[in-house]
Amino acid sequence: MILHGYFRSTASWRVRIVLGLKGVAFDQRAHHLRHGDQRRPAFLALNPQGLLPVLELDDGTALTQSLAIAEYLDEIHPEPPLLPADPVPRAHVRAIAQLIACDIHPIQNLRVLARLREMGHDEAAVHRWAADIIRDGLDACEQILRRSDGPYCFGPAPTLADAVLIPQLANARRFGAEGDWPRIAAIAAHCATHPAFMAADAGAQPDAE
Amino acid sequence: MILHGYFRSTASWRVRIVLGLKGVAFDQRAHHLRHGDQRRPAFLALNPQGLLPVLELDDGTALTQSLAIAEYLDEIHPEPPLLPADPVPRAHVRAIAQLIACDIHPIQNLRVLARLREMGHDEAAVHRWAADIIRDGLDACEQILRRSDGPYCFGPAPTLADAVLIPQLANARRFGAEGDWPRIAAIAAHCATHPAFMAADAGAQPDAE
Repeated sequence: MILHGYFRSTASWRVRIVLGLKGVAFDQRAHHLRHGDQRRPAFLALNPQGLLPVLELDDGTALTQSLAIAEYLDEIHPEPPLLPADPVPRAHVRAIAQLIACDIHPIQNLRVLARLREMGHDEAAVHRWAADIIRDGLDACEQILRRSDGPYCFGPAPTLADAVLIPQLANARRFGAEGDWPRIAAIAAHCATHPAFMAADAGAQPDAE
Repeated sequence: MILHGYFRSTASWRVRIVLGLKGVAFDQRAHHLRHGDQRRPAFLALNPQGLLPVLELDDGTALTQSLAIAEYLDEIHPEPPLLPADPVPRAHVRAIAQLIACDIHPIQNLRVLARLREMGHDEAAVHRWAADIIRDGLDACEQILRRSDGPYCFGPAPTLADAVLIPQLANARRFGAEGDWPRIAAIAAHCATHPAFMAADAGAQPDAE
C-alpha cells in the first residue's frame, strides 16, 4: 500500500503512527502542500477533496480521511488494537481523536490560514488565530485526559487518541500555543520513547525539509 | 438516556437521526447555544469542551463528539447497521461523515463565526466565509458520492454518511451555499421521506424557534 502524505501534515502523521503501531509495511509518496501538489488532476482523481492523506491499496482503491483510514487499518490488522474492546471506553478514545481532528486541526490548517491572509490579516493575526484554536482545544483535552490513567491517553497501551494527539502537539509548538497541560506533556514524553511514534515523526520522513 | 442538544446544532441533529434509525427512546435537554448555556459550570462538568451534543447514559456516563456517539450507538444497538460489514465500504462511509464533520462543519460553526466578527468582519463577510467552506466541501462530497449507488449515500439503506450529510444541508441553505449537486439533492429528497430523518429535523424539536 502507498501512503500519499506530506511530512508536516498532521493528518498524514496520524496514519504513519497507526501503520507503525500495526507493523504494516508501506511506501510513501510525498505531495508538497505548499506547492499545491494536492490540487493536481492526478491527485484529485485519487481524492476529489484535494487533501492528504490518501491510503492507496494494492488494488488501487483510495481511502481518504485519516480517522477512517486508521479504523480501516484497525479492522484488517486487529493486533495491537487501536481501540478498547468495550463500547464506552471506545467512545471515549474516539471522542479525543475527534476533538482534535474535528475541532482543532481543520480550523488551523493551511487552507483556513490562507483564507485569513486573503482576507487581509497579517502573519501575527494568523498565528494568533491558530494558537488560540489549539490552546482552547488542548485545554479541553487536558481536562478530559486527567480523568483517565496513563502512561498513554487511555491506559497502558497507545490508542487512536495518542496517534492523533502527538502530531497536534507539533502544531502547538509551531504556533506557540501554550497551556497548563501536565497530563498531555507526560503522554507526549512517553510516546516519544515508542518506536512507532519515533518513526512517524515529521522530521524522520524522506520529504522533511 | 438523555441527549443534551440544541435544535439547530447539526452535530446534535446527527445523533437524533441515529437514535431514530436505531429506534432508541431518549429524553432531550436543550441548551441554547446563542445564550451560552454550553459554557455554564453544570454543562462543563458533563463536557469540558463546552460543545454539544452530549449523550448522558443512565449511569451518568457522558459521551461526547457526535461521530463517537453514533458509533457507540451502532455498537450497542447493531440493527439496523450504520456501517457496511466490509472494511473498505466502512472506510468510505466514515470518510464522507468525516469530510463533513471535520472539514466543513467546525469551520463554519458558531464559535468560529463569532471569532471572525471579533476580528472586525461584517455579516456579509462572515456569511461568505461559511458559504465558501460549505460549497467547497459539498462539491467534493458530490464528486465522491457519484461513485456510489443510491438512493442513499451508499446504497439501499441509510448509513452514518446520510446522518451527517442531511443536517449539513440545512446549514448550506442557511448560508446560501449553492452548487451543482444532483446526487446530494436526490439523497436529500429520499431521506426526507424516512421517519427517522423527519423526526430529527431541526423544525420538529421541542426547542425549535
